[in-house]
Amino acid sequence: MTFDVVDVIRTKRDGHRLTDDQIDWFIRAYTDGEVADEQASALLMAIVWRGMEPDELARWTAAMITSGVRLDLSPVGRPTVDKHSTGGVGDKISLILCPLVAACGAAVPQLSGRGLGHTGGTLDKLESIPGWQALLPTQAMIDQMRDIGAVICGASADLAPADRKLYALRDVTGTVEAIPLIASSIMSKKIAEGTDALVLDVKVGSGAFLPDIAMARELARTMVELGAAHDVRTSALLTDMDTPLGLTAGNALEVRESVDVLAGGGPSDVVEITLALAREMLDLAGIDADPAAALADGRAMDVWRRMITAQGGDPDAELPVARHVETVTAPADGRLQRLDARAVGIAAWRLGAGRARKEDPVSAGAGVVLRAKPGDVVTAGAPLLELHTDDPARIAAAQAALDGAWDIGPDATADRTLVLDRIRA
Amino acid sequence: MTFDVVDVIRTKRDGHRLTDDQIDWFIRAYTDGEVADEQASALLMAIVWRGMEPDELARWTAAMITSGVRLDLSPVGRPTVDKHSTGGVGDKISLILCPLVAACGAAVPQLSGRGLGHTGGTLDKLESIPGWQALLPTQAMIDQMRDIGAVICGASADLAPADRKLYALRDVTGTVEAIPLIASSIMSKKIAEGTDALVLDVKVGSGAFLPDIAMARELARTMVELGAAHDVRTSALLTDMDTPLGLTAGNALEVRESVDVLAGGGPSDVVEITLALAREMLDLAGIDADPAAALADGRAMDVWRRMITAQGGDPDAELPVARHVETVTAPADGRLQRLDARAVGIAAWRLGAGRARKEDPVSAGAGVVLRAKPGDVVTAGAPLLELHTDDPARIAAAQAALDGAWDIGPDATADRTLVLDRIRA
Repeated sequence: MTFDVVDVIRTKRDGHRLTDDQIDWFIRAYTDGEVADEQASALLMAIVWRGMEPDELARWTAAMITSGVRLDLSPVGRPTVDKHSTGGVGDKISLILCPLVAACGAAVPQLSGRGLGHTGGTLDKLESIPGWQALLPTQAMIDQMRDIGAVICGASADLAPADRKLYALRDVTGTVEAIPLIASSIMSKKIAEGTDALVLDVKVGSGAFLPDIAMARELARTMVELGAAHDVRTSALLTDMDTPLGLTAGNALEVRESVDVLAGGGPSDVVEITLALAREMLDLAGIDADPAAALADGRAMDVWRRMITAQGGDPDAELPVARHVETVTAPADGRLQRLDARAVGIAAWRLGAGRARKEDPVSAGAGVVLRAKPGDVVTAGAPLLELHTDDPARIAAAQAALDGAWDIGPDATADRTLVLDRIRA
Repeated sequence: MTFDVVDVIRTKRDGHRLTDDQIDWFIRAYTDGEVADEQASALLMAIVWRGMEPDELARWTAAMITSGVRLDLSPVGRPTVDKHSTGGVGDKISLILCPLVAACGAAVPQLSGRGLGHTGGTLDKLESIPGWQALLPTQAMIDQMRDIGAVICGASADLAPADRKLYALRDVTGTVEAIPLIASSIMSKKIAEGTDALVLDVKVGSGAFLPDIAMARELARTMVELGAAHDVRTSALLTDMDTPLGLTAGNALEVRESVDVLAGGGPSDVVEITLALAREMLDLAGIDADPAAALADGRAMDVWRRMITAQGGDPDAELPVARHVETVTAPADGRLQRLDARAVGIAAWRLGAGRARKEDPVSAGAGVVLRAKPGDVVTAGAPLLELHTDDPARIAAAQAALDGAWDIGPDATADRTLVLDRIRA
């Protein structure tokens, strides 16, 4: 069946549901290059405007999956369960969680992406480990999941190719921030990777793509429903992203902090959210195990070392460090009331940890180290933040991003609630 | 000043006014090819969604004018006044009106377009006259206005080039039907052509782009305000387009009917709307003259003959006729209650009078002839319509378009009101 693309655009523009046939045709025709980018972007903006009905979005997502292959992970021989985060600042949880959950008996097929804008990317972080390779053939990925249980690698081009094209288009046309488009993009990739179960870490707060909790909850519900519609057991935790996770934002800086957690230490917020997500994943996978024990007794660290080694990395290698460190000091005595996640993310990005365009390189050593977290007592003149960069010319831009990013005051602060909600089908 | 186009798109997407600097930058950067089509179409869809404030639209229109030249018609030495129709079925009024108003002492710079979709184009109609040339150098156009007063020709590429690009983009991206975009497209071209005054014929009804009278009135008001903002005296008549104008829809068919009117005959609805528009134009031009007299005494016909001759056409030449004529007969006795303009326009288009894509040729002889108008008594088996085409294979598609296009019944019909409203600044 073939359609006039202008009729399809008008259907959505005028607030109607796209038919199943229109959806199937559009996704195939756009992926194959029959529909022009300027037509697809007009339709995307009409979707931002009008939204999609649940069954319409399910069909849209199914068509995106069908644009490529859906992996069969049954040769892995273990329950498979994955985690996806909607992206935050200092969010190194995948690095710890993947070997941790594998150590408890599941297999974790972490197909990850690179950072764009102020949020970091898991592959960029791991590439700061000398020798580590992000790209694996599919068979090698499956073998590694069977043998070690944990793999973190880039997605191959034949998984949801429609999403690859639509994602790049959304990025340059102001059509990123819409729940149906975010949900279908995430879920088409995760469903295509073949996992049995999936836990979504939906970030809420200033460092998240959707700062508002009501929007985050709607996104979580939408994704959980899409998972269920494709027989992937899916749940979501809403977690706090008002302030960075842990004490580091940057590639090698975050790997170092992750290794601290795998060694039984590390910042308490990272440990708490990691364990909450691990329990959720193991529950969905039907595995009765205590992830805290696997972290404490070194089993998670063992899997980490095997996982890094299997992909050519040296887990004992020295990690890159930035050539310059500039310290930002507290301007007054008091208690740190607030430290804005988005501002820290933008500062780390400007220091070289992130990229403005997909083809840009990232600096392994660059980033921000927090010397205090909200609630901590600070002293005038004592270090508050460290700015790490290879290029001192970038420091002024990072400082500008941090302007107004914190408050210091006399008040005691409330305990931070890290897991704000949990959503299941 | 330079902008991130994604920020500009987001500004409109989120419902805010674009700043003057954003507008100036976007129109220039898009015209120059710095902004990609997929970014421009996303912004256009956001404008369809969010609309534009009056001063925002005035700036947008000004930037489109500034993308090219604004003609100086002062060498013409007469008051200049033009007419623009939003497009209808059987709308041959420009062909009569231009020489008629010139015969009364004004100069009419009718820069016209070609038909697209179910509405005809003035240039396509005149090109059915053997030898007639649509494209004139600007100096020749000005000379003809000075010497004859009337010119109908294509717009040169340096008038509002931003509109040329945006119009082509809107056509393929479902972003045509939005008042700010329609108004800025029409007014940027008309203001750039340099006319002192302008009368808009805003069509209302099934054959119009905006069938609804409230929308048509808003479009008219918007355009009248844009004219005033650029010192072009502008008014609008809202006229009926529920049924075709006159008895013909098609290129040579409409030229023949126009010549009938210039000779003092022709269908009364065409005569009435032509005279109403002529009076409005002469009033804006400050000329006290009676257009009915100029039509009756042959002065308008004299100008027509000179205008056609000056552009290489032979006003006495035989016009092309279609090779096949299929008659559609009335299925019952009664009175014709309704004859739908859009259906007749689509039938004429399918018979070969119009084009599906800009690069398609049109058939000079093809079209539809009405043998009855709403209110006329019809007899079962007697002719209701004639379908003219060079290609008999097209007749079935035209008949399909006419399915349900008329009602025949016993009731008397109300007199048709042709001029529904008049809007001035």
